[in-house]
Amino acid sequence: MRKKPASKPYLRTYRLQPENQETPIHFLQADTVNHPLFYRRNHFSYPSLSYSNYWLSINGFVAKPVLLSIQDLLQLPSKKGQVVLECAGNKRSLFHPKVFGEQWEKGAISQGVWKGVPLRILLEAAGVKKGAKEVVVEGYDYEKKTDLDEVHTYTRSLPIEKAFHPDTIIAYEYNHQPIPFKHGYPLRLIVPQWYAMASVKWIKQITVIDDHYAGPFQSVDYMYYPHKETNKVAFPVTHINVNSTIQKPLNMDILNTGTHVVRGIAWTGKGVITKVEISFDRGQTWLMAQKELARTGYGWVSWLYEWKAEKKGEYTIMSRAVDSYGRIQPAAPFWNRKGYGYNAIDQIEVKVE
Amino acid sequence: MRKKPASKPYLRTYRLQPENQETPIHFLQADTVNHPLFYRRNHFSYPSLSYSNYWLSINGFVAKPVLLSIQDLLQLPSKKGQVVLECAGNKRSLFHPKVFGEQWEKGAISQGVWKGVPLRILLEAAGVKKGAKEVVVEGYDYEKKTDLDEVHTYTRSLPIEKAFHPDTIIAYEYNHQPIPFKHGYPLRLIVPQWYAMASVKWIKQITVIDDHYAGPFQSVDYMYYPHKETNKVAFPVTHINVNSTIQKPLNMDILNTGTHVVRGIAWTGKGVITKVEISFDRGQTWLMAQKELARTGYGWVSWLYEWKAEKKGEYTIMSRAVDSYGRIQPAAPFWNRKGYGYNAIDQIEVKVE
Repeated sequence: MRKKPASKPYLRTYRLQPENQETPIHFLQADTVNHPLFYRRNHFSYPSLSYSNYWLSINGFVAKPVLLSIQDLLQLPSKKGQVVLECAGNKRSLFHPKVFGEQWEKGAISQGVWKGVPLRILLEAAGVKKGAKEVVVEGYDYEKKTDLDEVHTYTRSLPIEKAFHPDTIIAYEYNHQPIPFKHGYPLRLIVPQWYAMASVKWIKQITVIDDHYAGPFQSVDYMYYPHKETNKVAFPVTHINVNSTIQKPLNMDILNTGTHVVRGIAWTGKGVITKVEISFDRGQTWLMAQKELARTGYGWVSWLYEWKAEKKGEYTIMSRAVDSYGRIQPAAPFWNRKGYGYNAIDQIEVKVE
Repeated sequence: MRKKPASKPYLRTYRLQPENQETPIHFLQADTVNHPLFYRRNHFSYPSLSYSNYWLSINGFVAKPVLLSIQDLLQLPSKKGQVVLECAGNKRSLFHPKVFGEQWEKGAISQGVWKGVPLRILLEAAGVKKGAKEVVVEGYDYEKKTDLDEVHTYTRSLPIEKAFHPDTIIAYEYNHQPIPFKHGYPLRLIVPQWYAMASVKWIKQITVIDDHYAGPFQSVDYMYYPHKETNKVAFPVTHINVNSTIQKPLNMDILNTGTHVVRGIAWTGKGVITKVEISFDRGQTWLMAQKELARTGYGWVSWLYEWKAEKKGEYTIMSRAVDSYGRIQPAAPFWNRKGYGYNAIDQIEVKVE
């Protein structure tokens, strides 16, 4: 007898140049996403780096610029913890009217354990001058943007307070291994609780400024534009919205009558998840889901609900998360032209037969 | 300098038990789908087969039942050719109202070179009796269906004329190699021009009958049910509908002004593709696409259109194929409750900036 072959999930491909592929979030049970299934989101081609001559520079509005090797960094105090990284465009495909850009479904999100040196330690070593406003982090990846005629590196700034937050780190390990190249090797900024555009990969240099940085990845992209035709009242994408995703059953599944476990994840960028609820009547009544795995650090919560599906028919199942800041998933998403921050109540349809 | 890592497309995962994964059709340029990217569609778990004791039996309404080893089959005259296999549920996710079942996008389709013994040679060897109506082909895969309380093998019948068609083969090779296990090793029925539910994998036996076979995979599933609530006027799924898919650009892509190649495939289950047209004005006017690769055998046609996108703005791009039977893709799909045979004009939206 031949052994039955294993079946495994794969990343979902959106684009290869630059590489954009999604985590098969509906097929993961574990609390950590191993790196082959970690979603890949790039603005540009992968950069070429020289590792034999890699130095991290902290410069700009500081008393004494610092140049560190990876070995230097490894000697410094470190922090380690579970962090959810979610692309600001996660669930973009669900907006109506539809918006242009990568049509991410629900898997532009992953979590895992990141380890690195708190950015504040490096900033303190360089001596940030009084009046510093932002910390600019530049990646090695660069190219021409489709909407601008110049070449740009992928660069973003953090407000000085966020840069000094003790959990904002210059990471060198993911899941107890050096960071995989596609996720930022050798060094990646990790900004917990913000959408992942803030977590700059392949760090080239860190520059303190006494001004506001207005590069395209925070003045053109990663801005919420509430109107289709004008840029008025635009504002920047920062914290992750409170959110949840049903992993099982799958949308449009056909099930037997009997007990089914409805399972999923919930996460937030402010405080912690306090409650996840399920509805079988389009949101008229809500039932409490159980926690399956407690959150650690800035990770997500796994939840489940044992559903006795006794009656044949079609069902809508919804999930809704609440966080400790009192934020709750809305019935309708906040539509914005570039499709960021989708966090409407999650919803699937199933048929019991 | 480190070499930039390659990026490759993967199958898209819908389910692991049974395994249903889709070909990343938008990321393929080649005329043949290599087996790691060949879509996988199963009703049941993969079967366990004994290869050391594998015999193909042709029995039933015949003069003399025949039992053949694989070695016996390899001695017989063979046929080889390019064949499109398309799941009847390909593009199911595009129906509105939505239908239950696997939400295939546009990649439950593949093509490659199949080689095997014409079924008619085996039928002639067994001596089909006068009055034979159908040939039943049973696979080794079996399980309980969600909607029926019995265990069934995956079994379907062919009308006697289709079974005797010289291009209906008992295949033992795919792309010049033994058939990959997940695609039916050691023997798979290949029925060109029919949706792929007809091409039974892991053949266990072939039985000639003088009656109509009414197993669940041709009386419950793989029937077109035009009405949501009744089974009236249902009719079986057989030939592939005339169809086309735009592979490039991707839906909701953002492009530069300039020349872009619109590229895709077109195929049919009756005759050959005679024309592929493109529209940029929602179907008011149609422009002729060029053939990129000519079809061979029962393969698809690759086509392209050089599009000069000079003006910024949002565009709808449509593709429409016509076959030698005068069949043409309709503006609206033929809605049916189980979501088979979707073949409406293909359509994507892009933004030029």
